[in-house]
Amino acid sequence: MGKKVIIVGGVAGGASAAARLRRLDEEAQIIMFERDSYISFANCGLPYYIGDSIKERSKLLVQTPEAMYKRFNIDVRIDSEVTGINPVTKTVTVRSIARGEYEETYDAVILSPGAKPIRPNLPGIDSAKIHTLRNIPDTDRIKKRVAEDGVSSAVVIGGGFIGVEMAENLKEVGLEVTLIEGGPQILAPFDAEMAGLLAKELEGHGVNLLLSQSVQGFQDKGELIEVTTAGGVTLTTEMVILAIGVSPDTGFLQGSGIELGPKGHILVNEQLETTQRDIFAAGDAIEIKDYVNGTKTALPLAGPANKQGRIAADNVCGLGTTFKGAQGTSIIKVFGLTGASTGNNEKTLQRLGLPYHVIYVHPNSHASYYPGATPMTLKLLFNNEGSVLGAQGVGFDGVDKRIDDIATTIRFRGTVNDLTELELAYAPPYSSAKDPVNMAGYTAQNVLTGRTAVFVPKELESRDENTTLLVDVRSEIEHANGHIPNSLNIPVDELRARLSDLDAAKEIWVYCQVGLRGYTASRILQQKGFRVRNLTGGYKTYQMSLY
Amino acid sequence: MGKKVIIVGGVAGGASAAARLRRLDEEAQIIMFERDSYISFANCGLPYYIGDSIKERSKLLVQTPEAMYKRFNIDVRIDSEVTGINPVTKTVTVRSIARGEYEETYDAVILSPGAKPIRPNLPGIDSAKIHTLRNIPDTDRIKKRVAEDGVSSAVVIGGGFIGVEMAENLKEVGLEVTLIEGGPQILAPFDAEMAGLLAKELEGHGVNLLLSQSVQGFQDKGELIEVTTAGGVTLTTEMVILAIGVSPDTGFLQGSGIELGPKGHILVNEQLETTQRDIFAAGDAIEIKDYVNGTKTALPLAGPANKQGRIAADNVCGLGTTFKGAQGTSIIKVFGLTGASTGNNEKTLQRLGLPYHVIYVHPNSHASYYPGATPMTLKLLFNNEGSVLGAQGVGFDGVDKRIDDIATTIRFRGTVNDLTELELAYAPPYSSAKDPVNMAGYTAQNVLTGRTAVFVPKELESRDENTTLLVDVRSEIEHANGHIPNSLNIPVDELRARLSDLDAAKEIWVYCQVGLRGYTASRILQQKGFRVRNLTGGYKTYQMSLY
Ligand SMILES: Cc1cc2nc3c(=O)[nH]c(=O)nc-3n(C[C@H](O)[C@H](O)[C@H](O)COP(=O)(O)OP(=O)(O)OC[C@H]3O[C@@H](n4cnc5c(N)ncnc54)[C@H](O)[C@@H]3O)c2cc1C
Ligand SMILES: Cc1cc2nc3c(=O)[nH]c(=O)nc-3n(C[C@H](O)[C@H](O)[C@H](O)COP(=O)(O)OP(=O)(O)OC[C@H]3O[C@@H](n4cnc5c(N)ncnc54)[C@H](O)[C@@H]3O)c2cc1C
Ligand SMILES: CC(C)(COP(=O)(O)OP(=O)(O)OC[C@H]1O[C@@H](n2cnc3c(N)ncnc32)[C@H](O)[C@@H]1OP(=O)(O)O)[C@@H](O)C(=O)NCCC(=O)NCCS
Ligand SMILES: CC(C)(COP(=O)(O)OP(=O)(O)OC[C@H]1O[C@@H](n2cnc3c(N)ncnc32)[C@H](O)[C@@H]1OP(=O)(O)O)[C@@H](O)C(=O)NCCC(=O)NCCS
Repeated sequence: MGKKVIIVGGVAGGASAAARLRRLDEEAQIIMFERDSYISFANCGLPYYIGDSIKERSKLLVQTPEAMYKRFNIDVRIDSEVTGINPVTKTVTVRSIARGEYEETYDAVILSPGAKPIRPNLPGIDSAKIHTLRNIPDTDRIKKRVAEDGVSSAVVIGGGFIGVEMAENLKEVGLEVTLIEGGPQILAPFDAEMAGLLAKELEGHGVNLLLSQSVQGFQDKGELIEVTTAGGVTLTTEMVILAIGVSPDTGFLQGSGIELGPKGHILVNEQLETTQRDIFAAGDAIEIKDYVNGTKTALPLAGPANKQGRIAADNVCGLGTTFKGAQGTSIIKVFGLTGASTGNNEKTLQRLGLPYHVIYVHPNSHASYYPGATPMTLKLLFNNEGSVLGAQGVGFDGVDKRIDDIATTIRFRGTVNDLTELELAYAPPYSSAKDPVNMAGYTAQNVLTGRTAVFVPKELESRDENTTLLVDVRSEIEHANGHIPNSLNIPVDELRARLSDLDAAKEIWVYCQVGLRGYTASRILQQKGFRVRNLTGGYKTYQMSLY
Repeated sequence: MGKKVIIVGGVAGGASAAARLRRLDEEAQIIMFERDSYISFANCGLPYYIGDSIKERSKLLVQTPEAMYKRFNIDVRIDSEVTGINPVTKTVTVRSIARGEYEETYDAVILSPGAKPIRPNLPGIDSAKIHTLRNIPDTDRIKKRVAEDGVSSAVVIGGGFIGVEMAENLKEVGLEVTLIEGGPQILAPFDAEMAGLLAKELEGHGVNLLLSQSVQGFQDKGELIEVTTAGGVTLTTEMVILAIGVSPDTGFLQGSGIELGPKGHILVNEQLETTQRDIFAAGDAIEIKDYVNGTKTALPLAGPANKQGRIAADNVCGLGTTFKGAQGTSIIKVFGLTGASTGNNEKTLQRLGLPYHVIYVHPNSHASYYPGATPMTLKLLFNNEGSVLGAQGVGFDGVDKRIDDIATTIRFRGTVNDLTELELAYAPPYSSAKDPVNMAGYTAQNVLTGRTAVFVPKELESRDENTTLLVDVRSEIEHANGHIPNSLNIPVDELRARLSDLDAAKEIWVYCQVGLRGYTASRILQQKGFRVRNLTGGYKTYQMSLY
């Protein structure tokens, strides 16, 4: 008999670890404990099943205990909660619905217990009309209310990925939906102006959005439930989805000697070994390193969880595979829009006091002359050395591709110069000869080398009219259709002839629609001896900042 | 007055160079010579305008001479052919329709004359019914024949990108189309089995495909033209599109002292300077370095041309920007399918005698439980050190993204281990928790580390039944629906119990549908002491090889 390995948690990290472990070691005895009745389900598909775009419930069940046994000879024990681990006696304690409480010895353990939805201790929180969404039973409950009980309204609390996905999916099946978010923006991985585009899309599809409203309590009113916020708003609805975040499901590790972080995350080294020998951990429950800035963080996402499960299995077998940190690449569909992000955002860089530059571009998804091209917004963050620190994208098409390209560049610790050199696939239906990612690279490079200086919309608030002059270099029609207050209109093509209209004593702040003509104008002016800055991303970014 | 820079060629490389140069140097005198009447047009859009998916001709004209003057103060001279360059006197000779022949002095030159369609010296080649496609006049001629003359059939000669795009587009507007290709496969950047998928798609949409047929001559027959091949086939059609490749349009450089390569490409260094001081070159006309294998090559594509134009301009201004080589990333839409490729293919690696490994995976474009997921085929080539050498993909959706991720990895000289670690954006509508690119990385890593040995379909031809045993590890139903001849069926889930069915003296060759179950089977068998190999990509790859 080979070594005996116990796996705690049977979904993303746990099931991945189990399958990999079997492939690596045909002789091992592998026992996978799962507290619930289901293993290996598609967590990420749950909102879409509720929203009816996934029609069959069976599709959510990627693997069953029987199939895992047949294929991988894994002893899957569902309805079995691991309640404690003793690294001295090398045993785990299990509470099983079928078998009661018992112990199992182990040679190695892989922990992948995941994270549980946060349920704050608010008045009325125990109402049966308040749902969280983590697993199949949760899903069945919500689905029943929507599909069978005919619920017609819902309040979603929390504007994170799950909250927004639920708002969208409930709307898709015809509910009246209000989304309440405590902070000033939804979707924290994005900076506010990027999240604003996604918020607008939610509103455009009829989701009521309440920002900066923290929920204070609930009260059942017969078939209805009242939600009250600190700001004094009271909403009456039939169902509440509580999605204000997750916390690691690691309570059972108390007293095990396994060290936990300040919020209960399991501490691991690069081989994903915990502070107790032969015990490894993966997934939402662990603390990891931010790949970009090196600080400690946690990232409850399926990609890292699956990868870490495989790495943990490798290390149970002594392969020495490492997990080098996570950069937070994430993506969400919001009705017709896609928002994606990788690396650090401005908020994070500011919090850590890390210096950075920012540029925006608004390229088309593919060659504009080929049908179906749609604009996207890409925001790129980089430092003085040119290292790419992060990127965010929002658009209708092709955003996932560009963020993945930049995510890959960040993985290799690449620079904005590297972005200019990426040789990406181009034909008119797919991209432009200079791909949006190249374009972001060029734009950043010009800032980095001092060929152009930029400003961001926020700086307009403190602009001094005595020392600066704001110039709109778009056409007269564009200017007439809307412009930043107090700007002089000199179309870029007339600039060379109208230099004398400008007061050379002032710093010239130029802007155009997306930043390109403004850049061209800035180059002309700079070489003519003016001090000049260009609004990065142009009027389009300015408008985003107004949301 | 600043330095005087002459640009030869006013489209992709030339116009990009001109625009960049102006942004870098407001004082330079920039003259751009273009032999034709149009500058800065969308070469890559021409087939789609003929095929009517681009409706307006004006959309093909990205910039006009007037606009280039207004925006960039560039002296654009159309209908002006540069007929010679004298680096000693620093002059170019120009033949202009309006001004006759004259000379211009220069301080620097940027050459971007592009490449012209090859017109072999065959009987009947001068027929007015034979068209090549490079520029707007060519396009107008073909468009007229299709849209006004009501031509209803065409023969396209050459199965490269332009030939295939023309076949598709002519078919889209209702013509009867035959595509003749001299080689045994279309689309040379792909290996034969991958190109086969695209060839099938062409045929599936009614394009007649003749492979391995070289055209011997043409004969006008009234309104029709006869095309005869060496194989004795004669086709009668109304119009011929000749698209058998391009050659650098560098005849005018004879005698200039600028050194050309064996096929007439301009030789340049990393700064894109030719062998004559102050003369730079970009685009289809130059010889470049293959980024993967370091040999000399040429790559007539718009991405490199645009990038090189910008780099040449940088170097005219002394910035020292380098072009580090091209990896051949390319992409094509073939009706509903996308084919994309980056790096070296097997044919190239074999020709150069470079050792490599190959794996295939057939993942879904996104999570299979979310609507709209479609399968793709990814082929990955890597060497003994794990360096990624090349990749090819064919599928309905998401192929461009995966090839771009791998192209980016190749740019950073990344390995298959790096592919496993890429943190790509995942939510069900976009990908899987283990992205196809991660999956290709895992599969390659397992081969590289010797955890599994693979074979490819071709090796079946020389398989010795006395020393090997072919085992289909799919289900009985799958086996019954089609299998490789002479294979024993043992479903992977029964394998552990049926080891005694296998002759341990023989090497076991397993296969499944896509390679995953075969891999699992190979791990079981290997650890049980068998010698075993798995068909990479499984039965699906086997079927591709039969085309
Ligand atoms: C609704 C929803 C949508 C999501 N969408 C996305 C998405 O689009 N993209 C993305 O990247 N990520 C998404 N995620 C996150 C992703 O599902 C998680 O990151 C991932 O599943 C984490 O894997 P894990 O193994 O750590 O935990 P889980 O997959 O949650 O598995 C942990 C399992 O352990 C069990 N368990 C816990 N404690 C014990 C114990 N003591 N004994 C026995 N069993 C125990 C639990 O019952 C649970 O089944 C989504 C999550 C949810 C809930
Ligand atoms: C139909 C078609 C489809 C294509 N599709 C794609 C695609 O999907 N993706 C892709 O990446 N690439 C594609 N390409 C290739 C791409 O267009 C070229 O790689 C790119 O245009 C090369 O740029 P260049 O500046 O070198 O040459 P060009 O863009 O061809 O410009 C050269 C110009 O120089 C002029 N010229 C030449 N000699 C002289 C002279 N002596 N004096 C003055 N002028 C001169 C020519 O008239 C020409 O206009 C396609 C090309 C064609 C023809
Ligand atoms: C399905 C599940 C049990 C994992 O099983 P798995 O076998 O490790 O994963 P996959 O089916 O994705 O296969 C990956 C393996 O197949 C191999 N593989 C994939 N395609 C292959 C091919 N064509 N040829 C050979 N090998 C292939 C990979 O190399 C990898 O093996 P390795 O880890 O030994 O290198 C687990 O991921 C799971 O439970 N998923 C559902 C839960 C979840 O992930 N939720 C969050 C997202 S919704
Ligand atoms: C259009 C054409 C003249 C090039 O002009 P260009 O000004 O260099 O290119 P683009 O319009 O793409 O703009 C790129 C520039 O804008 C800058 N830019 C782009 N978006 C920006 C933004 N939002 N803010 C600031 N700068 C921006 C880039 O940095 C780059 O400037 P740089 O080279 O000085 O760094 C040339 O590409 C052309 O003729 N194209 C048609 C022909 C062709 O390419 N055919 C083949 C493909 S079909």
